[in-house]
Amino acid sequence: MKKNKRIYLDYAATTPLAPETLKEMLPYLKKDFGNSSSIHWFGQKAQEGLDKARERVSQFLNCSFSEVIFTGSATEANNLVIFGVVKDYQVKAHRKGKIKPHIITTKIEHHAVLEPCRELEKEGVEITYLPVDKEGLIKISDLEKAIKENTLLVSIMYANNEIGTIQPIAEIGKLIKKLNLRYKLRAPSYKIYFHTDAVQAVNYLDCDVKKLGVDLLTLSAHKIYGPKGVGALYIKSGTPITPLIYGGGHEGGLRSGTENVAGIVGLGAAIAQVSSFKFQVSRISKLRNKLIDGILKKISGTKLNGSREKRLANNVNISITGAEGESMVIALDQEGIAVSTGSACSSRSLEPSHVLLALGLSPKEAHGSLRLTLGRYTTEKEVDRVLEVLPKVVQMLRKISPFK
Amino acid sequence: MKKNKRIYLDYAATTPLAPETLKEMLPYLKKDFGNSSSIHWFGQKAQEGLDKARERVSQFLNCSFSEVIFTGSATEANNLVIFGVVKDYQVKAHRKGKIKPHIITTKIEHHAVLEPCRELEKEGVEITYLPVDKEGLIKISDLEKAIKENTLLVSIMYANNEIGTIQPIAEIGKLIKKLNLRYKLRAPSYKIYFHTDAVQAVNYLDCDVKKLGVDLLTLSAHKIYGPKGVGALYIKSGTPITPLIYGGGHEGGLRSGTENVAGIVGLGAAIAQVSSFKFQVSRISKLRNKLIDGILKKISGTKLNGSREKRLANNVNISITGAEGESMVIALDQEGIAVSTGSACSSRSLEPSHVLLALGLSPKEAHGSLRLTLGRYTTEKEVDRVLEVLPKVVQMLRKISPFK
Repeated sequence: MKKNKRIYLDYAATTPLAPETLKEMLPYLKKDFGNSSSIHWFGQKAQEGLDKARERVSQFLNCSFSEVIFTGSATEANNLVIFGVVKDYQVKAHRKGKIKPHIITTKIEHHAVLEPCRELEKEGVEITYLPVDKEGLIKISDLEKAIKENTLLVSIMYANNEIGTIQPIAEIGKLIKKLNLRYKLRAPSYKIYFHTDAVQAVNYLDCDVKKLGVDLLTLSAHKIYGPKGVGALYIKSGTPITPLIYGGGHEGGLRSGTENVAGIVGLGAAIAQVSSFKFQVSRISKLRNKLIDGILKKISGTKLNGSREKRLANNVNISITGAEGESMVIALDQEGIAVSTGSACSSRSLEPSHVLLALGLSPKEAHGSLRLTLGRYTTEKEVDRVLEVLPKVVQMLRKISPFK
Repeated sequence: MKKNKRIYLDYAATTPLAPETLKEMLPYLKKDFGNSSSIHWFGQKAQEGLDKARERVSQFLNCSFSEVIFTGSATEANNLVIFGVVKDYQVKAHRKGKIKPHIITTKIEHHAVLEPCRELEKEGVEITYLPVDKEGLIKISDLEKAIKENTLLVSIMYANNEIGTIQPIAEIGKLIKKLNLRYKLRAPSYKIYFHTDAVQAVNYLDCDVKKLGVDLLTLSAHKIYGPKGVGALYIKSGTPITPLIYGGGHEGGLRSGTENVAGIVGLGAAIAQVSSFKFQVSRISKLRNKLIDGILKKISGTKLNGSREKRLANNVNISITGAEGESMVIALDQEGIAVSTGSACSSRSLEPSHVLLALGLSPKEAHGSLRLTLGRYTTEKEVDRVLEVLPKVVQMLRKISPFK
């Protein structure tokens, strides 16, 4: 198998860096190497790079320049939201003798939201993990019922990284706005803040923060054909939040540390390209449909996980009876096809996916699942090749596997 | 003034990325783009890159492979140390009913150490900020006197970023080892942990963690001709510390978030080159001496800040009466010479340097200071040019400035 023949169908784990984006980054990895905090020419050049990137991100999100901060990853941005909003409240509550805050999230969030919530739970913060239906959707009525007088933050992901289910973020935004207005009449300082982790959504869905009605939104460069090591957070002006990382006071005091200029320039370039590649969405979703239909037809004992309708254009997640997910990944890798069982972050874990369990799958079904995620460089020929190889791999594994 | 004639004397703020390092990074910005957590070929290639970098850093520090973790910046690494060691103690102390911890640091630390300490102070953690003498050195006897039965952490920087003063880290390490042994006899679980921020030291000083006797050591890629957006932390095996950022459990559970593979590869390449450039240290220190002696001789009313002997090979920090630091930076920049007044992080602040104030300088003297930091690409011709231009700049500013 030649290297250049390898098929990459794990775009949800990470995307290749687009050559156009690398081209924009290179000057900052060469002559424009200054520290953006320096006041001399080298510093100014670096600052210009940051400014342009921040402008591009804020245009994409339809927010102000100063409402965007850059972080070292989307995980960091999510941690900043969960810990930062709660800590700010706790400091003020300590002074005012308020009650403990309450957070609402879902059972199928990324670990970067769930784990900070679990840490806060240890400290006595109350967390509600909303259930999802068998397609992976939360019920708006469940959310409304869960909201209490001490609810401080609602964090619901825009599109799930494993099954691609798209939550009704704009609808949730409207509900929260309505409740905020209603409660405001009773307690003027009362406000529920709404955060969405939009990491998987940016390539495919409208991320206009005003239309969505969110106060906080997380995104990642390396999921949109940008570099690894860069995330961004939209923070609506006036949202009370304390930093996670203190020091020189970079990023409006909310994220200290010398800015990763080349990486941030890469995020700006990547997000500017998302719009120009929107025409790809229908192409990719057609390929995705071909892949789903092909697998369901060619391999018996298969079922699609997640929603057929409210699904990211690039996501395929299938449970295959009698074949173990990791074995399929390894066997396909030997054929030069890169896929995953679910979240890359959990690839080395033996636990079944918390997302698939939340859909109601048994641990055995969850262990027999495969995620194939398509992208900008996926071709029909590659999809055809997977549809040729996967049935053979499943047949082979079903013969030898004790996993039945 | 042609761009390529610009003189960069702000290596303490950031260094250019070495072309050799960029060359090693590029494959990871192109074909080897995988997520290191993925189990397929692309993931394995990324993991190999991380492994090699971790191996190189651990060789440089003379520690184990698993004692090095990567972060998004040195600031993040310092925050992880200060908050992580204290939080771990607090969680255990809560269970055991122990007393509040005590931290010892110095008045001249970087903001990335001072600000987390100030945050903890708000929560009731006791912090001792050791004074320094007029050369910027702490007294070992001051440290010994400051240690109390609830001292948990000592954090003292290896070399100062503004004045280049080198602290006696190995000697402090020996003292702490001795005290730990003595107290251990009384309270078996007792231990003081010793951290050093070695960001400015790596290029010039021995960073063997065993010789230094440290439990924790911070370093940064972009100060050693590597990329921005990457730091590393040495954590001696067994050191109790909790994460700052939670999620997928990367970096041994201590720093979640998809690893910045290209950046980390860059850090590894950069640190591997430090040793091969050690021959440069004497060349750079000769140029530094020429610059210091030249300025003191050619410009009246000047004095060197910091120590003449215990000084980083590349650091010049001068107070110049009757001239304001920022005006000098701007005037020199117009002549194509990039220098700074002190820490880049504080360049946009109007506060006088906390480091210079700690040396006993008046706010006025502190405002009239200039930092020139040399590096691998500094030439004698550049130093000569500065010695030609700076006296004229000072003369001009002294004429027009009300700052006298």
